[in-house]
This record gives sequence, C-alpha cells and structure tokens, in this order.
Amino acid sequence: MRIALAQINYHIGDFEGNVSKIKAAIQEGKKQLADVVVFAELAVCGYPPRDFLEFDDFIRKCYTSIESIAEECRDIAAIVGSPSINPAEKGKPLYNSAFFLSEGKIQSISNKTLLPNYDVFDEYRYFEPNRQPYHVIEYKKYRFAITICEDLWTTFDNPLYIRNPMEDLSKLNPDLIINISASPFHYEQETVRKDVLTRTAKIYGIPLFYVNHVGAQTELLFDGASLVISPDGSIFDELNYFGEDLRVYNLNDFLYKQQKEEIRDKTSKPRIELIHDALVMGIRDYFLKMGFPKAILGLSGGIDSAVTLVLAARALGSEHVKAVLLPSKFSSEHSVRDAIELADNLNVSHDIISIEEAFQIFENTLSPIFKGLSFNLTEENLQARIRAVILMALSNKFGYILLNTSNKSEIAVGYGTLYGDMCGGISVVGDLYKTQVYEMAQFINRKKEIIPANTMIKPPSAELRPGQKDSDSLPEYKILDQILYRYIEQRKGPNDLIKEGFDEATVRKVLKLVNTNEYKRFQTPPILRISPKAFGMGRRMPIVARYLS
Amino acid sequence: MRIALAQINYHIGDFEGNVSKIKAAIQEGKKQLADVVVFAELAVCGYPPRDFLEFDDFIRKCYTSIESIAEECRDIAAIVGSPSINPAEKGKPLYNSAFFLSEGKIQSISNKTLLPNYDVFDEYRYFEPNRQPYHVIEYKKYRFAITICEDLWTTFDNPLYIRNPMEDLSKLNPDLIINISASPFHYEQETVRKDVLTRTAKIYGIPLFYVNHVGAQTELLFDGASLVISPDGSIFDELNYFGEDLRVYNLNDFLYKQQKEEIRDKTSKPRIELIHDALVMGIRDYFLKMGFPKAILGLSGGIDSAVTLVLAARALGSEHVKAVLLPSKFSSEHSVRDAIELADNLNVSHDIISIEEAFQIFENTLSPIFKGLSFNLTEENLQARIRAVILMALSNKFGYILLNTSNKSEIAVGYGTLYGDMCGGISVVGDLYKTQVYEMAQFINRKKEIIPANTMIKPPSAELRPGQKDSDSLPEYKILDQILYRYIEQRKGPNDLIKEGFDEATVRKVLKLVNTNEYKRFQTPPILRISPKAFGMGRRMPIVARYLS
Repeated sequence: MRIALAQINYHIGDFEGNVSKIKAAIQEGKKQLADVVVFAELAVCGYPPRDFLEFDDFIRKCYTSIESIAEECRDIAAIVGSPSINPAEKGKPLYNSAFFLSEGKIQSISNKTLLPNYDVFDEYRYFEPNRQPYHVIEYKKYRFAITICEDLWTTFDNPLYIRNPMEDLSKLNPDLIINISASPFHYEQETVRKDVLTRTAKIYGIPLFYVNHVGAQTELLFDGASLVISPDGSIFDELNYFGEDLRVYNLNDFLYKQQKEEIRDKTSKPRIELIHDALVMGIRDYFLKMGFPKAILGLSGGIDSAVTLVLAARALGSEHVKAVLLPSKFSSEHSVRDAIELADNLNVSHDIISIEEAFQIFENTLSPIFKGLSFNLTEENLQARIRAVILMALSNKFGYILLNTSNKSEIAVGYGTLYGDMCGGISVVGDLYKTQVYEMAQFINRKKEIIPANTMIKPPSAELRPGQKDSDSLPEYKILDQILYRYIEQRKGPNDLIKEGFDEATVRKVLKLVNTNEYKRFQTPPILRISPKAFGMGRRMPIVARYLS
Repeated sequence: MRIALAQINYHIGDFEGNVSKIKAAIQEGKKQLADVVVFAELAVCGYPPRDFLEFDDFIRKCYTSIESIAEECRDIAAIVGSPSINPAEKGKPLYNSAFFLSEGKIQSISNKTLLPNYDVFDEYRYFEPNRQPYHVIEYKKYRFAITICEDLWTTFDNPLYIRNPMEDLSKLNPDLIINISASPFHYEQETVRKDVLTRTAKIYGIPLFYVNHVGAQTELLFDGASLVISPDGSIFDELNYFGEDLRVYNLNDFLYKQQKEEIRDKTSKPRIELIHDALVMGIRDYFLKMGFPKAILGLSGGIDSAVTLVLAARALGSEHVKAVLLPSKFSSEHSVRDAIELADNLNVSHDIISIEEAFQIFENTLSPIFKGLSFNLTEENLQARIRAVILMALSNKFGYILLNTSNKSEIAVGYGTLYGDMCGGISVVGDLYKTQVYEMAQFINRKKEIIPANTMIKPPSAELRPGQKDSDSLPEYKILDQILYRYIEQRKGPNDLIKEGFDEATVRKVLKLVNTNEYKRFQTPPILRISPKAFGMGRRMPIVARYLS
C-alpha cells in the first residue's frame, strides 16, 4: 500500500484552479506508483469558505469538482475534502466531509464529528456534526480510519467535546489513520500538533497520515508541515513548511518495521524564524491571490515600517515594493537618514514627499473654525491622515497596495490614527507585540546589518510633535507587552494581573485602553495571524461594551 | 399568579447598571403585586457579550450580579438570564441559562438547548447545549416551563435542529411557558416571532410569556415588543417597541378565560416606520452607550446624507448634530443650496468648508510623481479623502463623532472611497438599499417637506468629476437593488438570477463587484442592522476568494 500525501496551496472559491492542482497531484501520485493520494480538508473549495457555503451554487460547484476529480481516479484512489449535503430532514444542511474516490466514482463519504467553533473557527455555523455510526474504508485489503482535523483533537483531556471519534473507529480494527486537516499556523501550533498526533498513533498502534493546507487565505496562514507518524508514536516524516509538497510512503517497507534509523528527526526552527517565514508567505499569497502586482508603504525610520519593508521585499521582490518617506517638520533628521539607508540596503526604490505644505493648508482651511485653539491630538492625527491620503493616491494611480505597519501593542491600546497610519490592505506585523518586532529585527540582522542600528536603538516615537516619545503616553513596552499578553492571549483579569505584581493603576489603564479601542480595531485591515490570539476574526468583542472601561 | 414582564435596555458588561435596572424592576413588580418578574436572556451581562465570555473575571461578575439580585427576591421571585458554569468535565465551559431566584437565593437553573450559530449569532462558540432531562419550576403551585429564545424556534418544520425542547417539557404538564430572549430586530422578525409564539401557545394550550431585550448594542437593534400569548394562540398583549416597558398580568383573571374582547389586537406599523424607529434608536443608543456627546456628518445635497441627517437629528436632537458642506469645483450649485435648505429645515447648524485649496495642494505635492498623468479615479478618491480628513479633524478637535452615510447598494458594489466617504463611527443607512433610502425619504416627508424635493428627484451623483452620474458606472438602482437583494438576502446564484430574466452581463458584473469589494467592507464602520442579511458580523466572507469574480 503506497500512500501519497499532497500538500497544496488552494485558493478559496477557485474551483478550476484547485481541481487542476488536485488532478496534477493524482497524476504525479500515479507516476510514483501510489495507491491512494490524500488531500486536505475542504480541498476543492479552499479553507475557510465561510458564508459562500450558504450558496447552493457554491455547493453545486463543490460536487461538480468532486465528480471531475473522481473521473481522474482510475487505477488509483483519492481522499478529498469537500462539503457534502446532509440528506436528513433535520439538522444543518451540510457536512464537512472526506470523499473516497476510486474507479471513477465516489465510493464513500466520511463526515466530521467535532466541529471547531472557537477562535478563528466557525464550523458549527455551517455543518451538522456526524451522528452516524463510524465506518472504515476498505481499499486493497487495508482498512482506513478516516478522520477530519478536529476529530483527533479530543483525545487527551480536552474538555471541549463529549465524543471521541477515534475511540469508536478503533473498534473497527483499522490498519491506518488518515487525518485531513485545515489547521492554521500560530507559533505554538507545531508543538500541539505533534503532541496530539504522535500520542494518537501510539495509543492505537497504527500509522497516522496527516495532510494539512499550506499557503495563506488573507489573515490565516497555513504552514503545511503534514506528518507521517509511525505506530510507535515517532515522527516518520514531515512535509515542507510554508511550501507545497507531495511525498509517497510505502506502508510495508517502512512503517511496520519501526525503523528508528529511518526517522528523520528534524530539529524545529526557532519560533522567530517560523514567524518570519509565515509572514513572508502571508504577504506573498495575499498579493498573488488578490492579483495585486506591487506594494507601497510609508517608511518612517522607525522599527515597525522597517521590519514590514524587509518582509515585503522578501515576499514580493525588491522591485515590486515602493517605500515613501513622508517627513514633517517634526521628523528628525536621523529618521529620514535611517529610512533611506534601509531602502538602499534592500535595493528598494523610495520617494520623499513632504507633508508640510498640505499640513499648512489644512491648518489654514480649518483656522476659521479652530480659531486660536492650541495644537493637540487633532494636529497629530492630521499629519498621519495626510500621509495616508498621499499613500492612497499613489496606490490608486499606480496600482500599489498599501501595507499597514501597525504593531500589536499599538493596535491593542489604540495608539494610532484611524484612517491614518492604521490604513492598508493587509497588516504585516499587527500580530507582533512591539518587543516581538524588535526580536524580528534582530533576527533579520543576525548575519549582517540590514535594518540600520540607529532604528533598533532609538526610543520609539510617532514624531507627531516636538520631542515626542511613545513612553510619554504608554508604559514602557517591556511592561505593556507583558500586560497585553496576559490579557489578550491568556484572558487574565485585572485581579490576576495585580496579584502577579503589575502596578494596579497601569493594569487598569491598559485594560481600559484595550477595551475602549475596539471601535478602532473594527475598521483596520486584516492582520496576518501568527499568535494563538490575534486581533480580527479570532477575537470578537462588542464595541459599545462597558467592561473594565 | 401575577407575572411581570420587564423589558429593559441593558448595556453589555455594565454589571452595575444592569443589576440596578433589574432590582428597580423587581421593586416595581412588588409594588404592582407581581409574584414573579421575568427578565431577558443574558440580562445581567447584556447581549451579545461575545468573547468577554472567555474571561473568568467576566463570568465571576455575572455570578456576583445574580447573587445580588437574588438578595432582592424576598416575597417575590425573578427569572433572570445569565451565563452559568458547566460543572461537567467534558463539553464547553458555560451554559446560557435562566436563573430562578426566590427567598433570597438561586432556586434552580435552566439551560438553553438550541444555540443559534447562524447570521449574527455565535452561541455555540461559547455555550454547551443542554443535554440533561428537562424540568419544570414549581412556584406557588404553578408549573413553569422555562425556555430560552431559540429553544422555541424549532417547533415548525425548522430543519436546523434535531431536538425540540418544548416537546419534552410539555410532558411535564406545565401551566405556562416562559421564553426569555435576545432576538434582534430586522424588518421581517415581527412576523416570524408572532407566528412561532402564537402557534406554540396554541399547540400546548397554555399561556406563553415572552420577554425580549430592547435597545441597541452597536449594530444589533433590539425592538423589545415582548409578548403575552393566550392558550388559544391569540396575542393577549404586546409590550413597547423600541422602548423599555414593564407590565403585570394575572393568569387567573385573563388568560384562562380567553376573553377575546380583552385582546388588544394591534395593527402593525408599516415596515418603513419600524425601520425608521429602529435606526433612530440605534443612533441614540450608540452615542449614549459610547458616551459620545454629539455627531457630525458631511452633507452633500444628496439623498443618503439627507436621510442620515434627519435620523440623527431625531435621535440626538438638532443641537447635538453638526452638518458640514465640503464643496469642490465639481459640486453643483443646487447641491449646496439643497444641503443648506435641509439643515435649516432641521434647525441643524452647518459649516461650509471648501476642499478646493487642499485638493490643489495635493495635486502640486503629487505632480512630480504623477507628471502629466490624467485625472482619473485617483483624483476622485482624493476629494473624498480630503473631506474625511477635514471631518475627522473637526471630530478630534470638538468631540463630534462622524456618521457614515453610505447606503447598502454602494457598499455592496464598492462604489465609495475607502478612508473617504466610507469613514465614520457608525453607518446609519448602510443596511438600506438606495431604493429603500428613497422610500425612507418619502416617509420622512409624508406630512411636510423636510428633505428638499430637489434632493429627492435629481439623478444620484458622487459629483467627483464634471457631470458625473452613478448610472455612468452602475446599473440603474431599480435593477441593481433587485439583483443585490437576490444575491445578498436570498443567496441566489448567477444562474438563478439569469433564469429570472436579469441580463446576464449585468448579473455577472454586479456579483463580481460584490465579491471583489469584500476588502473594502472589511474596513468600514459597523452598520445598523435592519434586514435579515446585513453586511457585518452576520455576513462573513473570505477576502482573497476567487468565486464569481
């Protein structure tokens, strides 16, 4: 029994493209003498299809795709993820299914039992959980236990579900476990995934084949890293991270012998490198899938736009990125110098456009109404918004897409200007706290200085009034980020934080800032997600709430 | 048995405020000799609390609130909605519950079985469905069947759920049905609600008391309209629409006699009037709950900003609204005249700020880069963005909150400028198609001309280039809105639409515009929801998708 794992970058709703990739993989599987090729969860339509699942036309196209793929399955079988229609009178109209295809047709459909509905997941919105008795698929004398992603995620003290599909499936004496997945990356996901899958294989004493998506769907970054686990719970093989892959395994040759020496025990990459690679893929796929040719961003001389520019240049190529310096009278000379130096280091072309004249004109225009009121936050925001107007004009005129350069710390506390520096098509470092942005800069500079040293060491400043520093308005980032992490990622309350030793006034101020700035975050771009709790679809908060505020 | 229904405007997370309103209602109930006061679903924390439910601190505050309310229940009982902790080892950590309070303590907890997880609802994200056997509450010799909102929504051929809680509860011989709800308004909801509730009461032959939320929580508008249904399925009474209310009913005196003559058979208001009232409440509550003192908007002389201004003046009072005219060289004279006339009709103060000078300066600033490229969409967007910069500067300086004036048709097809006219804290008419905006204008003008006739009859135009009309870029709104309604509200596909007789090229163009403008909608303000399918939390679409695009 030769099993091929096809780890593919799908595009949501692009049935033609997805089917053509799937068929090519089946042909490649044939060439490599595979008996069956395994594809990911909801492969035909891409993941997550979201409310497109409510359109009959969309579901019809899923079925047409499956039928067309089945045609390709002659002398080879395929396991392909797709929605399927629930034939029962009651319950939601769809299942999240794995289709077993061979001899030119659909042989069997297995439905997902455990539907994740937390964080970024909404599967219970669309799908009925499987309530039928489980079945194994018999193919060429092997018995396949087919599971879909979350179905295996309940095995170990996980309190979320009351059922455990593998417990039932194991009673049917399967020879191997298949798990087709759509499991997005975050920096702790690799550890969790390997723990769950290796323990599962070991408990049931049979090999496990896990196929994940790879590629980005807007904010969700799929790392791939599909796995083959031996019956003894050791990792037999791991597919590419952040790239497509197809590999074929012979059950008899390898897995039952438990040849330890065959196990390629890979050393995991450092977390910051995984995040780096994830973000580069995220930018690249966003532009590719949206059909956008090139990026633009405002380069301030600060650390956030510096890191964003490096990642964008790596994702799109220097020639497809434009940096714009937009100095005002409050911009320090070194900021302009640092920005130019970085652009030159990266071979990225830059323009310098002063916002001074526009700022003066707005001041004139508004002076009859503002009469004699003093410079305050209004004028600071005005500068940020003039920059956005210029960047968006360049975007409109030349087809650049604006990259947002806000970091997670400032997004959290609302330290940014709506319709100003909070603009952009996609936020690149919006899931990195400020201290993580510095860590990324150090990682980027680990071999040679790409980001100027001065950008790394100067105190963070928005440079919107004379001598301004972030620390005038906010706690030091070292403290701020610790509080934010405990509140956002760990969902700790004010009392927990105070007990841990954080200053009470600071805690209350920070939590209030986070909660009262929900209205700003509502209108910001999608954020490439690298943490277990990113702003966006995975964190849903009411705007008018009055809680810790 | 005297039952009080307390229809209250809660504020999410404002435990102190909510508890104080609940206690006041219990005292009022006592005064009116009620035996039990019934409050809405998740009353203590407000609805929807969203991811605050993931914070232990938030749940602790719910319990503290319930205990404090229980203290108030001496010689009177209360039924109050609150999350409760699931004591089981497996399953999600919370239930959505009704607490029965009397004699100073919690007597019983009933858990919700059917958890809506469609459209704007995410309840399965947080709550475990009840899987325990049902129980009735005995109080003063009456047997209460307590249900929570959706629990009753499965009775009639509703294919979403496989269980029917009332079917089981009815076997326990209850004397009456209580339903505590959080059922937001849309223009078809009243009909559905009355149908479900009257049929339920009739089937089981016992009275039904239904208590809903009232008031707005950002985009969700709760109309109240709590109901008392007689055992014969007729409507015995209906509480206020769009306002708080408390009424007391005596089971013996009224309900069992089925005195038809007692039934106040109310004529429903016309749909457009309900929408009008819902939007006025939506604006008012947004400002009240956010603590914002006053509103500002750009008044163009067109229909969208005209209707928005009228609704805002009604919600907040003319003296709390500021209109700003921002003419350019492309603004027609009549537009300025119409705008001033409307402001004067409403007694709303206005400023006129020309954007011409700022526009020229940006043209100068950009001219070295744009060198000789001709006027196009870039310059159109530039004007819209300059307007936003000025409006936001006034907002920042004086504490006005900007009202967004986009309508559903233009939001659907992306006919608007991101960071320009798509700005604002809240979108007022964003769930009204352009043709519905006209209908609203006619309703506003039904007694006397408030919106100038010229605003109503002139062809819609963005006035961003000479002689521009919306119909240069888009199908006539009469056609466009019909296509949009079928695609957005009815989820019909292109083939369905073409079969219905719409022009194929138009259909494909419109659907493509809707799908490819998801990225713009992602960054727009929350939209007051009045339809069964509004843009926002109830319609979740992938951004990078390639479907019908």
